[in-house]
Amino acid sequence: MDLKLPSLEDIKDARRCIAPFIHRTLVLKSSLINEYMGAELFFKCENFQSTGAFKFRGATNAVMQLSPGESGRGVGTHSSGNHAAALAKAASIRNIPAYIVMPETSPEVKKKAVTAYGAKIFFCKSTLEARESKMEEVIGETGCTFIHPYNRFDIIAGQGTAALELLEEVPGLDLIMAPVGGGGLISGTAICAKGINHRIKVWAGEPAGADDAYRSVREGRILPSVNPKTLADGLLTSLGELTFSAIRENVDDIRLCSEENLVRAMQLVWERMKIIIEPSSAVPLAALMENPEGWKGKRIGIILSGGNVELSSLPFGAV
Amino acid sequence: MDLKLPSLEDIKDARRCIAPFIHRTLVLKSSLINEYMGAELFFKCENFQSTGAFKFRGATNAVMQLSPGESGRGVGTHSSGNHAAALAKAASIRNIPAYIVMPETSPEVKKKAVTAYGAKIFFCKSTLEARESKMEEVIGETGCTFIHPYNRFDIIAGQGTAALELLEEVPGLDLIMAPVGGGGLISGTAICAKGINHRIKVWAGEPAGADDAYRSVREGRILPSVNPKTLADGLLTSLGELTFSAIRENVDDIRLCSEENLVRAMQLVWERMKIIIEPSSAVPLAALMENPEGWKGKRIGIILSGGNVELSSLPFGAV
Repeated sequence: MDLKLPSLEDIKDARRCIAPFIHRTLVLKSSLINEYMGAELFFKCENFQSTGAFKFRGATNAVMQLSPGESGRGVGTHSSGNHAAALAKAASIRNIPAYIVMPETSPEVKKKAVTAYGAKIFFCKSTLEARESKMEEVIGETGCTFIHPYNRFDIIAGQGTAALELLEEVPGLDLIMAPVGGGGLISGTAICAKGINHRIKVWAGEPAGADDAYRSVREGRILPSVNPKTLADGLLTSLGELTFSAIRENVDDIRLCSEENLVRAMQLVWERMKIIIEPSSAVPLAALMENPEGWKGKRIGIILSGGNVELSSLPFGAV
Repeated sequence: MDLKLPSLEDIKDARRCIAPFIHRTLVLKSSLINEYMGAELFFKCENFQSTGAFKFRGATNAVMQLSPGESGRGVGTHSSGNHAAALAKAASIRNIPAYIVMPETSPEVKKKAVTAYGAKIFFCKSTLEARESKMEEVIGETGCTFIHPYNRFDIIAGQGTAALELLEEVPGLDLIMAPVGGGGLISGTAICAKGINHRIKVWAGEPAGADDAYRSVREGRILPSVNPKTLADGLLTSLGELTFSAIRENVDDIRLCSEENLVRAMQLVWERMKIIIEPSSAVPLAALMENPEGWKGKRIGIILSGGNVELSSLPFGAV
């Protein structure tokens, strides 16, 4: 496997390539949250991105890089989440087939999101093995190009465009944060930030109940995410070789958060900013709440990864 | 009572007066909602306004108009909702006392919103009579100025500033809509829109289960809101003489919506735009859904009145 990582220039190329198709999302501030936290926070609202998550940036970049021959046979992935919807929409824009392998148990809203873009779903059991074997079957049948959700040069470059927009719009950030699951978003974010100014600190936020990235960096090798327990259902996956390498080179720290702070942070954003973010998006803010060290009084950029939640089952209890 | 209505110039004066204190809120669009509705919609996001609702505009304008003598004795109102929080915050900015009469049964989040700004709460039973008699008692004790939530020149002028910003930012609107409860927002909106361009249509949205404004205009006299039944808890009140007069002169139509469309419209905005709006905010969009006549293919401005909802009790069922 080619372990070449994208550079800042590759992220700029990705931005030129995807600009006609993606939203340049808003950066929002909240004086109430700034006061509460004791820092100046800038939220990059990828919850407002097309398909409701940053994933559309990387998926669009990957789809647009395909050769004409490849594109005719379409793209495929196994994912129950935002990457699936993003790939389905990106494929629909280029008018090529998309094949999505999904656990039968996926939420209805995610199935609908994929079929609405004309993608074909193949159901499987919810184990990683079942997904991968069904995926190979589909690749064998269709000849489609497998688009891994994060462990790809073009995906990482695409995800880095969110930080590129944020850093251009808000100069003088001291720190930039994104959540880490498979690592595509934080890898692109970190490469972009360090490429623009090496003194900007880059932190990943990770739920303590799914702390495989934290442990992987400590041990110097990729540890799998085993039986993760967190509301942040976008952050259950393990790192890939590319994202592990990008994180080791460019991320200054991985900060953990409890589930309690995750819900507090999510509720704070919903109540004070009146925007809908998914649990994964709240992880960086929750990680700041967890540990006051190193960020009070700073200018901090936070990438809100997405806003796709099932409205009928929210984690907010009665006050 | 003085029945003089504000003019467009009064709304512009109000804007100059309150500009240092309020947010100039975003205008958002959603290509998905435009496609779904078959029109071009521009949403003025008063859910992002300070205190979470447009009410802060009028309350700030009213508080800033007080004479030094009046201001020393403070302001008071009876409200369980957004006007109470707005008045409390406006008073705190001018550093004067605020006295809020509220039903004991008000949601916790509304009590907290008021006390957080340093206002003093007086509890009463939840009937209008109980509120009014407690209010008179408080006025007698404190000498405070009673700030009616909608039936005031300065309140209507303040509420009109949301439409002023919207119409300046989005030229060429065919139609502008706001919900109608007591009528402060729709009165200010209509006076502003007709003052800028008489050909802009102005419609109020009202829940069919609380259709007193609709019936009042039909009958040519103010009919009280008796036993209203709607999720839109900001729209339960009756018109006042000033707002009735403003509506009769400036509003082209009042469009009703069912509770079913209200929930559909609210869910559409939450899911597609990823922003939190309260049920009252969804009423204009719901009224459009109810009746396709007269707006398809048009450029429509909708004022989203606020975003204060109790997150632990939402109206969204399982999909």
